[in-house]
Amino acid sequence: MAAIDKYNQRAAKINSLLCVGLDPDFAKVPKRFLKKKFPQFEFNKWIIEETNKYASAFKLNSAFYEARGETGIHELKLTFDYLRKYYPDIFVILDAKRGDIGNTNNGYVNFAFDWLGVDAVTLHPYLGKEALLPFLDRKDKISIILCRTSNKGAGEVQDLIVKHPVFDREVSIWQIVAEKVSKDWNKNNNCMLVVGATYPKEMKKIREIVGEMTILVPGVGAQGGDLKAVVKAGLNSKSLGLIINSSRSIIFADNPKEETKKLCEEIRTCLRF
Amino acid sequence: MAAIDKYNQRAAKINSLLCVGLDPDFAKVPKRFLKKKFPQFEFNKWIIEETNKYASAFKLNSAFYEARGETGIHELKLTFDYLRKYYPDIFVILDAKRGDIGNTNNGYVNFAFDWLGVDAVTLHPYLGKEALLPFLDRKDKISIILCRTSNKGAGEVQDLIVKHPVFDREVSIWQIVAEKVSKDWNKNNNCMLVVGATYPKEMKKIREIVGEMTILVPGVGAQGGDLKAVVKAGLNSKSLGLIINSSRSIIFADNPKEETKKLCEEIRTCLRF
Repeated sequence: MAAIDKYNQRAAKINSLLCVGLDPDFAKVPKRFLKKKFPQFEFNKWIIEETNKYASAFKLNSAFYEARGETGIHELKLTFDYLRKYYPDIFVILDAKRGDIGNTNNGYVNFAFDWLGVDAVTLHPYLGKEALLPFLDRKDKISIILCRTSNKGAGEVQDLIVKHPVFDREVSIWQIVAEKVSKDWNKNNNCMLVVGATYPKEMKKIREIVGEMTILVPGVGAQGGDLKAVVKAGLNSKSLGLIINSSRSIIFADNPKEETKKLCEEIRTCLRF
Repeated sequence: MAAIDKYNQRAAKINSLLCVGLDPDFAKVPKRFLKKKFPQFEFNKWIIEETNKYASAFKLNSAFYEARGETGIHELKLTFDYLRKYYPDIFVILDAKRGDIGNTNNGYVNFAFDWLGVDAVTLHPYLGKEALLPFLDRKDKISIILCRTSNKGAGEVQDLIVKHPVFDREVSIWQIVAEKVSKDWNKNNNCMLVVGATYPKEMKKIREIVGEMTILVPGVGAQGGDLKAVVKAGLNSKSLGLIINSSRSIIFADNPKEETKKLCEEIRTCLRF
């Protein structure tokens, strides 16, 4: 089984492209969880119970756990252990945006793929393919490379216009990254890209460049991305190829279950047309 | 006192620009430490005792600790606590190469600056200034932005030729990053850059762009950087402006103390001429 099959099978089975972002910003965790020994983990368990029916993936952003030092790291681990035990068919992502030189990346490979046991990790492209080989060589795991991020200021670096290193044309850096990853870094068919939901036009171009490759899409909900526009622009030929993540707008909603269901059904509508 | 003064005062006091990289790759930690309760921490303590006389800074790369999960994170914290207690005048760097969207970076700010209490952290430029503001806004701490990294494949992305967004000329991405950081991101005078010792020509250009800004230089020793060439190319007008890091070639040497002394004296020679 290829590493991507786990996600595709789950997505097909429950007819959902939704990823629930378990980003338990400690200042916002509901009070009733704060009395517990592991408040972020207990909060996560509750969210997982409420939302798993609609979730093809769960994504945990390391920063919200690291903020609390080793206590938070412990709760990050507890959550991944829980997911693997009770929901082994749901794809799990560590959103850690790592990226060092090759020798050093071995440590992050151990952290993400071995110690935490996640299916996928997010990575910076700035050091190039050679540096990322410890991740890319893991055929059993997915490397998700940042391409066009969802933040307001993403364009400052990512929109810079580059002379194409091979062809006589001008492209933006995110286009070069999309091209490099899909044509070269993805030899083991285990790469994905990050493209923010806030940029549907860029999504359309990236889909043209990368063929069937799966794209992780943060920025729906709190960050204001236009869900329908981005799904329409980003689906691959099999009505798959997207992992649409929502974090804050689900987990801190008055009713996370209803919110997740609504979002899942909105995505399904886009799949029909 | 500006955040950079801690480093400059220490460097001037002991006449050294040397940073010792505490990167205790667990597979290489000497056997006598493996019996101890905290082997990485005990190994670090020994290296610190042997080398502190010549060290203006210590840099700990998070990956070598994260590789061991929360146990490693605990030993990372123990080491920084130890340094702060016994060597409060030595500049300490967390080499974590982080970089997320703004809201999320707050978590990494808490991890690095508050929980670990380091003086500086290394960061990816790919998401732009707006995303890095939680780091840049901390006037009491240093943000060290990756510019030209030391790895063999660094050029794949960093050497791409870009149309300058303001002036009518073509530059490489690392030049744009050097320019942006020094002219715009550094409003609080709390930025540094990473420039690998393996690229002295690039170092010379970057020094021209950034004025007096301090540059962290990894890649001396095991990675094969030419020490004299890079020091000559990189010093600022005050014979300062460089933090020259060596990790593996010091900490796994037969005699770390002698190796550190030798390296420190080599750097001093470059300062004289």
